[in-house]
Amino acid sequence: MLVQRYFYSRKTLVDEALKSYIVEPKEGPTDLYKAMNDAVFPGGKRLRPLLLFSTYEMLREKKNLASIKPLLPAAVALEMVHCASLIHDDLPCIDDSNQRRGKPTLHKKFGEATAILAGDALLTKAFEVLTDLSDKEKAVRCISILAKAVSSRGMIGGQTVDILASKKNVRINVIRYIHMKKTGSLLQAAMDIACVLFGAEENLMITLGNYALNIGLAYQIIDDILDDVGAFDMLGKEPFEDSKNCKATYPSLIGIEKSKKQAKKLLDDSYKMIKNMKKNDILVEFIDTIRERLP
Amino acid sequence: MLVQRYFYSRKTLVDEALKSYIVEPKEGPTDLYKAMNDAVFPGGKRLRPLLLFSTYEMLREKKNLASIKPLLPAAVALEMVHCASLIHDDLPCIDDSNQRRGKPTLHKKFGEATAILAGDALLTKAFEVLTDLSDKEKAVRCISILAKAVSSRGMIGGQTVDILASKKNVRINVIRYIHMKKTGSLLQAAMDIACVLFGAEENLMITLGNYALNIGLAYQIIDDILDDVGAFDMLGKEPFEDSKNCKATYPSLIGIEKSKKQAKKLLDDSYKMIKNMKKNDILVEFIDTIRERLP
Repeated sequence: MLVQRYFYSRKTLVDEALKSYIVEPKEGPTDLYKAMNDAVFPGGKRLRPLLLFSTYEMLREKKNLASIKPLLPAAVALEMVHCASLIHDDLPCIDDSNQRRGKPTLHKKFGEATAILAGDALLTKAFEVLTDLSDKEKAVRCISILAKAVSSRGMIGGQTVDILASKKNVRINVIRYIHMKKTGSLLQAAMDIACVLFGAEENLMITLGNYALNIGLAYQIIDDILDDVGAFDMLGKEPFEDSKNCKATYPSLIGIEKSKKQAKKLLDDSYKMIKNMKKNDILVEFIDTIRERLP
Repeated sequence: MLVQRYFYSRKTLVDEALKSYIVEPKEGPTDLYKAMNDAVFPGGKRLRPLLLFSTYEMLREKKNLASIKPLLPAAVALEMVHCASLIHDDLPCIDDSNQRRGKPTLHKKFGEATAILAGDALLTKAFEVLTDLSDKEKAVRCISILAKAVSSRGMIGGQTVDILASKKNVRINVIRYIHMKKTGSLLQAAMDIACVLFGAEENLMITLGNYALNIGLAYQIIDDILDDVGAFDMLGKEPFEDSKNCKATYPSLIGIEKSKKQAKKLLDDSYKMIKNMKKNDILVEFIDTIRERLP
C-alpha cells in the first residue's frame, strides 16, 4: 500500500510535468500537438521516470517528493523518448501494430506522416527539456547519456536488429542483444542520470546500470514467455504475436523452462547487486513486481 | 575564386568531422550505419555549416580555418539534423521521393524501416555531438537552440503544415509559414549558434537571425519559381514536382512576376541588415548566389 502511494504520487508529478511541456501552439499544426499529446497521455506505468526517482531517493537515503522536483526535466525527457520509440515501432513498415494500450496506434488515428513527425518532435523535445536542468555541466552529461542510450548503438540499434532478426533464424545471443538494447539501454540511462544528478561515484553507477540491464532483460524474457503461453491478463496485450510474426524468442529457442530459469537468475543477480544498499526497498519492489509476472 | 576556396576548405573540414562521428560499429546493425553514412555522404552544399562558420568568422572579423575547429560539433549537428529531415521527408507517406541528389532515396535502397530508424539515429546523434562543445554552458544553449529549431514549432511544424497544405487550397501566408519553418528555422539556428559560440550581443543575434529567415524564404520562393518554369539545370532536381503533387506555391498563388519581386525584396532586405557589418563578404556572397538562381 505504501509502495503504491509512493508510485502514484510520483506518477502524478511526471504527468503534470509532461502536461506543462506539451502545450497547444498558438499558430501552426494542431494535429501534430494532438498526436504528441495522444502518444504521451494517459500513458503507461511511467517506469523510466519511476526508476530515475527511486534511484535518486535511494542514493539520498530519504524519500521526499519535494527533493525529486529538480529531476522532472530528466523524467519528462526519458518518458518522451520512450513514447517516441513506441510511435515509430508501431508503424506499418516496422511492427505494424493497430492497438497500443487499448487505443488505436498513432498512425491509425492521425495517419503515417503525422505519426512519424510526432515521433520526431517528441524525440527532439526530450533534448530541449533536458536543457532545463539547473546545473548545466550535469545537463550536458545527462544529454550525452540519453543520446547514447537512444542511438544506433542503443535503443535504435536494438530495434534495427529486431527487424532484421524477424526475417531469419537467429541465435539466442542476438535475442539477448535486442532485449538489452531495445529495453535495457533506456532503463540504464534512467539510473545513470539519477547517479549524475545525485553525484554518485563511478563504481556505484556501473553497479546500478547493471541492475537496470538485468531487470530489463528479465522483463523481456518473461514477456516472451507470457506471449508463448498465451497469458492475455498478465501481458496486457494480445498473446501469440511473436509466433504470428515469426519472431525468434527465448522460449522458441531454448524452451519455456530454461527461459524461466534465465529470468529468475537475472532477477536473483539484480537483487544481489543492490541488497547491501541502504533504503533499497523500491528497487527491490521492481524486482518482485517483475518476478510476480512469471507464470 | 577566393570565395570558392573558402567554401571548399570549410566543406572539407565538415566532411572530415562528419566521418569521424559516423563510425562503423564493432557489433550490432551494419545496415543502420550504412544507411546513416549514405544519408550524409557525399552530401550537398553543407549550407548550414557554412553559414555557421562564415557568421562566426565575420563576428571575429578574421577568416581563419584553425579558429573554426572548435565549432565543428555544431557544424556536424546542424548537418545531421538536416540529413535526418531529408530522409523522413522523402518517405512514401510524406513526399514519396525516389531520388535525392541523383541517387535512390534511403528507403528505396534500405527499406522504409531502416530509413526511419536511420533518420531517428542521425537526429539523436546531433544532440550527442553538441555535448562535445568545450564550453558546457554554451553547449546547453546551442542544444536548446537546435532543438527548438527542429521542434513542432520549427522545422517539423513546417513539414506537418506542408503535408496538410498539399491536400487543400491554402493562402500565401500558409506557404510563407511552411518555407520559414521548414527551411528558415535551421538556417536561423546556424547563425544563432555562431552568435552564442562567439558571444555576440542579443541585438546582433536578432538581426542575423532575420537575415537567415529572409535568405531562406527567398531561396524557397525561387525554388518554387524554378519548379514552375521547369528549369532543371538550376533546380538540380526534376521540375514540375509541385504541380504534380498539387502543392500550392508562390507562383501558383500570386504569379511568377510577383513571386520574383518578393524574392528580390527579401534579398534586398537581407543585404540591408548586414551591409554595415565589417568583413561581411561571405554573407553578401550567399545573397548573390541565391539572386543568381532567379530566372
